[in-house]
Amino acid sequence: MKNTLEYIKKNRDRYIEELFELLKIPSISADSAYKQEVLKCADKVADYLRKSGVDQVEICQTKGHPVVYGEKIIDTSFPTVLMYGHYDVQPPDPLGLWDRPPFEPYIKKTPIHPGGAIFARGSADDKGQFFMHIKAFEAMSATGELPCNIKFIIEGEEEIGSVSLGDFLTKNEEKLACDCVLVSDTHIYSLDQPTITTGLRGLSYMEIEVEGPNRDLHSGLYGGAVPNPINILCKIIAELKDENGRITVDGFYDNVEVVSDEERKEMNKLKDDPKKYKKAIGLKALEGERGYTTLERTSIRPALDCNGIWGGYTGEGAKTVIPSKAFAKISMRLVPNQTEGEVVDKFTKYIKKIAPASVKVKVKPMHGGLPYVLPVTTKEYLSAKKAMERSFNKGVLPYRSGGSIPITSLFEKILGVKVVLMGLGLDTDALHSPNEHFGLYNYFKGIETIPLFFKYYTSEDV
Amino acid sequence: MKNTLEYIKKNRDRYIEELFELLKIPSISADSAYKQEVLKCADKVADYLRKSGVDQVEICQTKGHPVVYGEKIIDTSFPTVLMYGHYDVQPPDPLGLWDRPPFEPYIKKTPIHPGGAIFARGSADDKGQFFMHIKAFEAMSATGELPCNIKFIIEGEEEIGSVSLGDFLTKNEEKLACDCVLVSDTHIYSLDQPTITTGLRGLSYMEIEVEGPNRDLHSGLYGGAVPNPINILCKIIAELKDENGRITVDGFYDNVEVVSDEERKEMNKLKDDPKKYKKAIGLKALEGERGYTTLERTSIRPALDCNGIWGGYTGEGAKTVIPSKAFAKISMRLVPNQTEGEVVDKFTKYIKKIAPASVKVKVKPMHGGLPYVLPVTTKEYLSAKKAMERSFNKGVLPYRSGGSIPITSLFEKILGVKVVLMGLGLDTDALHSPNEHFGLYNYFKGIETIPLFFKYYTSEDV
Repeated sequence: MKNTLEYIKKNRDRYIEELFELLKIPSISADSAYKQEVLKCADKVADYLRKSGVDQVEICQTKGHPVVYGEKIIDTSFPTVLMYGHYDVQPPDPLGLWDRPPFEPYIKKTPIHPGGAIFARGSADDKGQFFMHIKAFEAMSATGELPCNIKFIIEGEEEIGSVSLGDFLTKNEEKLACDCVLVSDTHIYSLDQPTITTGLRGLSYMEIEVEGPNRDLHSGLYGGAVPNPINILCKIIAELKDENGRITVDGFYDNVEVVSDEERKEMNKLKDDPKKYKKAIGLKALEGERGYTTLERTSIRPALDCNGIWGGYTGEGAKTVIPSKAFAKISMRLVPNQTEGEVVDKFTKYIKKIAPASVKVKVKPMHGGLPYVLPVTTKEYLSAKKAMERSFNKGVLPYRSGGSIPITSLFEKILGVKVVLMGLGLDTDALHSPNEHFGLYNYFKGIETIPLFFKYYTSEDV
Repeated sequence: MKNTLEYIKKNRDRYIEELFELLKIPSISADSAYKQEVLKCADKVADYLRKSGVDQVEICQTKGHPVVYGEKIIDTSFPTVLMYGHYDVQPPDPLGLWDRPPFEPYIKKTPIHPGGAIFARGSADDKGQFFMHIKAFEAMSATGELPCNIKFIIEGEEEIGSVSLGDFLTKNEEKLACDCVLVSDTHIYSLDQPTITTGLRGLSYMEIEVEGPNRDLHSGLYGGAVPNPINILCKIIAELKDENGRITVDGFYDNVEVVSDEERKEMNKLKDDPKKYKKAIGLKALEGERGYTTLERTSIRPALDCNGIWGGYTGEGAKTVIPSKAFAKISMRLVPNQTEGEVVDKFTKYIKKIAPASVKVKVKPMHGGLPYVLPVTTKEYLSAKKAMERSFNKGVLPYRSGGSIPITSLFEKILGVKVVLMGLGLDTDALHSPNEHFGLYNYFKGIETIPLFFKYYTSEDV
């Protein structure tokens, strides 16, 4: 391990420069206008894998954006770790709120990152994090300290629900055979309290279209007599939660796992300071499901949010129109044991039920994924815990995240192995927001921790 | 009059060609990107006035878009009619729904316009209609049959609330002195049942901004614990009307004029065929304030509509974000004796009252205007009625429109005269919508009716 750590130190500057090159590519998977950039990014990733000493690197075509694959088999009798990441990023809008262009990475110090952070779309989610694995591998491999076989699978559709990946895993089940999957696409609780993500919420992302009149109408001549699709869409959305912050969709909570009081007590040891929490996001007050803490509301309880809404005239000035149509994007975060299909079904039925007869309503599922839990008794968890406790020199706690990595449960289902979520970001890194960033300290702490995980995971005594 | 009518017939083709030139200019007042086009349109209008024989044509600067003025004084002892119109137009979006580009006028037959209609943004609202007055004047003046003095005032800000016109009227009170104002910016009930608009609703156009977190948040990491500005904006809008279709703003109906049963009975002689009405706009059902007919809901009763809403991710695909802000444009149609200031006040107070403490809410009045009523006993009304009955050879009824022409009440207040709303459009002409059009029959019927109005208005016996 000593040589590996020295190698990392020696190559520090290059490790940053190479990441910058990756961050300069606007690989926005949600917007077809960026298709070429996504492909360009896949090539770049493949290129980096080769240069780092990975064998059999290939760019695997899918129905959507390609998957980059590579492997290094040093001894078939050794265990094999499959490393997963994604090279696509979220759209950067609203562009106006970025201090600098989202795809021109730069380093700036912040109160939370006194050692400096890399600012760019994708820096933390997920380019900076999967690149830790490539660089850790390079160091282990260059110094001959790689203790097991490794496979890389880096996809380009995570931000749009990994639509093609399930297919890819099924078709390549043998090729991808491994003992566990290692993912860095999550965050630690704080630099003082490192955590390993032992839970993820599932996702069900829907789009609603409400159609009233067959054309835009003059709101003076028709106002007062015709159903307005915007007003009606608002009423529908308003009726999705009750005064206790509970989701009103019929039967929504039927399968929600009831977490034991012991576990709730344990998880609430991670104390959120509400003052700090509110201050960090500039809120006067928080809200949510009555009877649960903020930590619980964002981890073991489901949530419903409108992620986008549009209709009518949204330009400068005033236009007196009753539009023909109005639209909304709504996502629900799911917890064990909710399933995406079940929720899509219940949500669709409910919307059709509460929509007035005067309008046509379309409900379209966009994408989704199952929730996931990693028991804290598994060798996978314990190895990651030990590795992190060593590199951070601090105690590590399990942490259930509110986010979703739809494919996590797919890996378990198709490859039959556990997934370790050893993310190194912070939830203040502005993921999916303007000025996304990733701490330099976190970046290198990750590169140092990964070899330790390999070490403990491949040794008998964990 | 005979010569005037012959002159009109002889110049029919040129009267169409000249209007086409005007319709080719995208004079969109709401969008500052079109400022130059608005100015170009003002020049064109001035040019046409001069060519038609109007004296002292000037382009008068205002704080916003200019007003085009012109006059023809044949004898100061004669009565003077002030003709008002506007050369600005509504934005054409959504562009995708136009059969042809909005500023490339063409003629097409329709079931309602077997003689053909001119399709273009502004054809009916209001370029085609104010141009009728210029062409009618040209015919009267060329044939020496102009029976009175005439003044033209054609503005460029009607679609954004005539922000500068009040100022202009006040500053030019003497110059604009007249006996009545004639406006063609409204529609007749149908070609079988010509009407004169004796009422207009007022307008109060507001914009709401709801701010939650100080930046966009990842809906997975934060979903369930923070106020979502879109969900909250929807709840606010949903609470603006009750289950009886009544506006819930405190005291909103306090000053609403109660129309007598007799008058309601009279106005309902204009029978809307609900089947036809619904079919024309592709609706399965209508809605509105309980206890009133569609005709009443769109004329003597106030209305509230959301004209635009936007927030979060509205692009292709899915983005899991809780946005920092969400926005809505909301307009209210007012009836006698509501005032804009009163409604702005009550609306703002109510929004602040129902908005939760967890978000910041801004309420901004955009523009508005007072309602207007023209008594059916006035010489202005009777002259217009007689002129129309003669040209259409049909009985004419008074009609209260749901639309707003904010300046109508301004004319009455500042110039102290009555305003005659002798519009020739149809409410099926798709005003403010894609494929706006104006019937050729209506266009020339208007050009023939205007001289008759002058004749009756200037004669003793009406």
